Amino acid sequence: MIELRSDTFTVANHKMREVMAQAKVGDDVYGEDPTVNELQAQVAKLFGKERSLFVPTGTMGNLLAVLSVCDRGDEIITEYNMHMFKYEVANISAIASVQINPISGVDGKIPLDYLKSAIREENIHFPQTKMIALENTHNMAGGKVLEKSYIDAVGKLAKDKGLHLHIDGARIFNAQVSLGIEMDSLVENADSIMVCLSKGLGAPVGSMLVGKNDFIEKALKYRKMLGGGMRQWGHCAAAGLYALENGPKNLKKDHEHCEMIGKALAEKDWVESVDSSTNICRFTVSETISDKLVEYMEKNLIKIQRTGSFFRIVTHLNVSKKDVEKVLDAINQFKPGN
Amino acid sequence: MIELRSDTFTVANHKMREVMAQAKVGDDVYGEDPTVNELQAQVAKLFGKERSLFVPTGTMGNLLAVLSVCDRGDEIITEYNMHMFKYEVANISAIASVQINPISGVDGKIPLDYLKSAIREENIHFPQTKMIALENTHNMAGGKVLEKSYIDAVGKLAKDKGLHLHIDGARIFNAQVSLGIEMDSLVENADSIMVCLSKGLGAPVGSMLVGKNDFIEKALKYRKMLGGGMRQWGHCAAAGLYALENGPKNLKKDHEHCEMIGKALAEKDWVESVDSSTNICRFTVSETISDKLVEYMEKNLIKIQRTGSFFRIVTHLNVSKKDVEKVLDAINQFKPGN
Amino acid sequence: MIELRSDTFTVANHKMREVMAQAKVGDDVYGEDPTVNELQAQVAKLFGKERSLFVPTGTMGNLLAVLSVCDRGDEIITEYNMHMFKYEVANISAIASVQINPISGVDGKIPLDYLKSAIREENIHFPQTKMIALENTHNMAGGKVLEKSYIDAVGKLAKDKGLHLHIDGARIFNAQVSLGIEMDSLVENADSIMVCLSKGLGAPVGSMLVGKNDFIEKALKYRKMLGGGMRQWGHCAAAGLYALENGPKNLKKDHEHCEMIGKALAEKDWVESVDSSTNICRFTVSETISDKLVEYMEKNLIKIQRTGSFFRIVTHLNVSKKDVEKVLDAINQFKPGN
Amino acid sequence: MIELRSDTFTVANHKMREVMAQAKVGDDVYGEDPTVNELQAQVAKLFGKERSLFVPTGTMGNLLAVLSVCDRGDEIITEYNMHMFKYEVANISAIASVQINPISGVDGKIPLDYLKSAIREENIHFPQTKMIALENTHNMAGGKVLEKSYIDAVGKLAKDKGLHLHIDGARIFNAQVSLGIEMDSLVENADSIMVCLSKGLGAPVGSMLVGKNDFIEKALKYRKMLGGGMRQWGHCAAAGLYALENGPKNLKKDHEHCEMIGKALAEKDWVESVDSSTNICRFTVSETISDKLVEYMEKNLIKIQRTGSFFRIVTHLNVSKKDVEKVLDAINQFKPGN
Repeated sequence: MIELRSDTFTVANHKMREVMAQAKVGDDVYGEDPTVNELQAQVAKLFGKERSLFVPTGTMGNLLAVLSVCDRGDEIITEYNMHMFKYEVANISAIASVQINPISGVDGKIPLDYLKSAIREENIHFPQTKMIALENTHNMAGGKVLEKSYIDAVGKLAKDKGLHLHIDGARIFNAQVSLGIEMDSLVENADSIMVCLSKGLGAPVGSMLVGKNDFIEKALKYRKMLGGGMRQWGHCAAAGLYALENGPKNLKKDHEHCEMIGKALAEKDWVESVDSSTNICRFTVSETISDKLVEYMEKNLIKIQRTGSFFRIVTHLNVSKKDVEKVLDAINQFKPGN
Repeated sequence: MIELRSDTFTVANHKMREVMAQAKVGDDVYGEDPTVNELQAQVAKLFGKERSLFVPTGTMGNLLAVLSVCDRGDEIITEYNMHMFKYEVANISAIASVQINPISGVDGKIPLDYLKSAIREENIHFPQTKMIALENTHNMAGGKVLEKSYIDAVGKLAKDKGLHLHIDGARIFNAQVSLGIEMDSLVENADSIMVCLSKGLGAPVGSMLVGKNDFIEKALKYRKMLGGGMRQWGHCAAAGLYALENGPKNLKKDHEHCEMIGKALAEKDWVESVDSSTNICRFTVSETISDKLVEYMEKNLIKIQRTGSFFRIVTHLNVSKKDVEKVLDAINQFKPGN
Repeated sequence: MIELRSDTFTVANHKMREVMAQAKVGDDVYGEDPTVNELQAQVAKLFGKERSLFVPTGTMGNLLAVLSVCDRGDEIITEYNMHMFKYEVANISAIASVQINPISGVDGKIPLDYLKSAIREENIHFPQTKMIALENTHNMAGGKVLEKSYIDAVGKLAKDKGLHLHIDGARIFNAQVSLGIEMDSLVENADSIMVCLSKGLGAPVGSMLVGKNDFIEKALKYRKMLGGGMRQWGHCAAAGLYALENGPKNLKKDHEHCEMIGKALAEKDWVESVDSSTNICRFTVSETISDKLVEYMEKNLIKIQRTGSFFRIVTHLNVSKKDVEKVLDAINQFKPGN
Repeated sequence: MIELRSDTFTVANHKMREVMAQAKVGDDVYGEDPTVNELQAQVAKLFGKERSLFVPTGTMGNLLAVLSVCDRGDEIITEYNMHMFKYEVANISAIASVQINPISGVDGKIPLDYLKSAIREENIHFPQTKMIALENTHNMAGGKVLEKSYIDAVGKLAKDKGLHLHIDGARIFNAQVSLGIEMDSLVENADSIMVCLSKGLGAPVGSMLVGKNDFIEKALKYRKMLGGGMRQWGHCAAAGLYALENGPKNLKKDHEHCEMIGKALAEKDWVESVDSSTNICRFTVSETISDKLVEYMEKNLIKIQRTGSFFRIVTHLNVSKKDVEKVLDAINQFKPGN
């Protein structure tokens, strides 16, 4: 099967498995796992921040950022289709007791004047705005990249207003590679970043939360509270280190593959709309042929993600050039019928 | 001073004070306050529902509705400028641990297809949608009325999807009077309604939460949990009963007064926009004359509410015909200067 | 009926009703109710603290104290049978997300060394201890008084450890009258006090939260969040002012009445144990005669509170000397049978 | 160094590392990781329950149990020194908004009549009791075992009262081995069990939550909400399967080692008290020699856990017979001095 549902499906190769097996480990609850410590140091350096924390998932990383910055009853601002608002089981409200003010954006970006007017003034009826959270690349916008200039502008606004700028960077390496700039430059005006090792980079599990010392210190305690403080998980950190070294260089190819698929789809008259950037291609077809398309793809050993008549294709390191050719063939030969 | 900041400023007249003083009272935590019980029975009947509960404020009434219907981590849908999302200190997230999905509407109404698509499907990443909450009249939309046909349509959708329809009816008597229909008919397809006795109706304090028996039973317990279970507050319930009997008939006049003021403002070239319905008039002026306008009004013994260059005028039973004439004079004679 | 279930059953007399009716009022959400402001000023002064806040109930007052001092995930220490742990619907956990560490005490007092060892050290597994909360008089201990020396010792410990000392003073006037000292002296080493106007003092509703300016400022915001911010409730504040002036002088008599009843019970062989102080008398009888005792009392027009074989009698300003004589007669003539 | 601070310090051997490296994996958020599925099936069967869930930590497993059984504002009963109350960062209150009612026990067991009287009746002032949670073996009681007869008695009470019985079985394999009975028999009257793979059994990370289908279905969703839903963590599950097969047979030896150390300590006059069972030995020395003891042990390459003058020693599979002999020598030769 060619797995295009998500880049979360990547499976470790032989080399990555070997470093996992050979990892030096210790009890990370006591801060004594050398491989976890090494991973945390490398990531902090790469992002140009003081410290980083290894966490089980991106969802926990984002939640920890909010818990560490906001008190119960505060408010944060996100784009309306942002992952933290749409896909994290409402945990910002449920666990952190913080309200999200979600603002519709364009290509994942909230226009700056909308952002400005969403920041609360002092008023007995109002929660206090504490954070702006961006997503880069923006999954629901079809893998769109938020450029440095936009992040810098939001970062400046946040600083002026005393707010924390957090980036859900589940796929920030895709953004960085696409922009062709240094990571520390891309995020220099963000206060914290959550980065996934387990998506495009190819590690089996794990994400990183990056920021200032005191922010990470708080996140460390909250990680324990949520039950995310594991023991000898240097085995997983070793895979993370491998992913960090070897993953980014594959992303350019993933982007090319995705672009090819996006273009092929855009030419078909049975496709209603296509939104494709970096390694994510979203498209819609008419309700009537949705079922048929899924069946057809499965018969051709291709798995794609579907919600109603909305489809998503994601390219990643386990999708080869040959796989892409098969996908293109399948797209070209699909007969929607009547 | 002519008080136009809000209809929350109404002060009890001699007659209302007399009934407060003479009220028969008991300990309402034990359910033994006869005047509270009488008020609760009357309101339930008027709204055509099984039971009602006397609560300190509209804010608590809305919060109790959410607590009684939703578990932690559920989601509710409101209009983007709805009071529960904008003006209740984020308590739906902070206290109930429930996420609000706020959708921009027109005149306080969320278009039905937007509403439909905001209801979550079953998915491990999603919270469960449990409630739709409307506001009638809609304060931020300038006192706009939600007609029975709209409420019925939303109620039907809610029923189809297994959702609870709640109405923040802080000013639902203004809607009812404006529509000229029976209250029980207006809300027949809503599952619960919060009604304020302390705004246009003129009681000093108190709101009612109305709904089914088991819903109110849960709300009663949550009222105790929040610390809203008072003792001999039949004194306040007596004022509520008086307000219920005497308040609604004043609202027509309030609406006429508001309309006169709205029209006068609409004719001025120093007014940029006016949005006026029922007893609320919202208008904007240019930033440069905002300060001057407030000062001028105060010098003319008129208090209006201002947030930046946004102004609000609310008419109520303590604003007489003579007062309105003074306000109109003041508006007509205002010289914005340059 | 002679009402001995609780001192929450007191009903306003003619004079108190008159001051309620004549109160000068305004919108307290805007801080413009002169009677509320007067009450808040008087209470702050009486307790020797910077500021006080009028709140709907004692339960809300205690909850606001915790919300204003603790972040989510902190811990507070109370006596095991303390009202905040036992009788406030678990709202410290449910609403404030704060854990209670309840320690068994003697006569409502936690031994100081137990208290010391319950304060948490710094450890990644531990919540942070933020508050010690005492109850004076202690309801479940049978109205026992916590003396100034005990409060001072706990206050000193709290200060040394950087903790906040809060007193649930639902019946602190009973303690003060019993001790015969000034109120500001009794609480000088407490950081905050919640005081009920609606129990022994006889007001129909309302409690006060007393403390420092910034503490009360936070509580004010949280009161709004909980939905406890009422409008023209100067009517209730007026009753509070009357209760404050006239209530305390009645308490000595209540205590004498309670002592008489406690002594009478202690002499009966059908009574297993009696615990009586200030205005609260708790006693137990054997399971087999519990039903009979309640019935007998009701037939004699006396209402007492029962939970299983545990009984409570509370004296208050609506219990006259004659009433007490009738109660004593009833006790003396009760025949438990076999 | 000989590591006696905790059995969480065990490090995977070569064989375990090999199975981790060779594991078949998939995306467990989609339920497609075969090794995770295999582990979950085996554990459910072993404990005689319908289903089990692989979770990052014991802390998360316990929290998920509470979230899945209790609504906000409910209450659960634990022993006063139970791990969930003492060592999980108050997350039952902070995250689940549930109150813990902690009752002092003997050897980790709450006397049944105390338990009975702690279950709440219906009352508007009370939270609802929903769960009893036991810990087996009981860490703070010095590794004490809760026998089947006690668990059965508590299970019967729970069933009678409509409560859920949860067992924190972080070290339940130590209890089972010590009792010499089948695991499914030991827990047959418990509704859910949390089991750690990462303590005595020797896996690097991970715990299991075991119970009925609908309970685990809820826990699965809450795991996602907390951010504990990882991707290809079949690598970790493989280590778990290995631990499950090979870990339990080592425990008898650990218990013998611990007993030898406990006996040696009990004979020394510089030891004030010893409490030792299964693989945990707790002891106290006088404050004056605490520092010296730690230093001495470190010089002898032995790490023990200390909190003030309280010490803990834990034996586990990385502590060999030779290691124990060195520890005994060190104990025997320690000179507390004066």
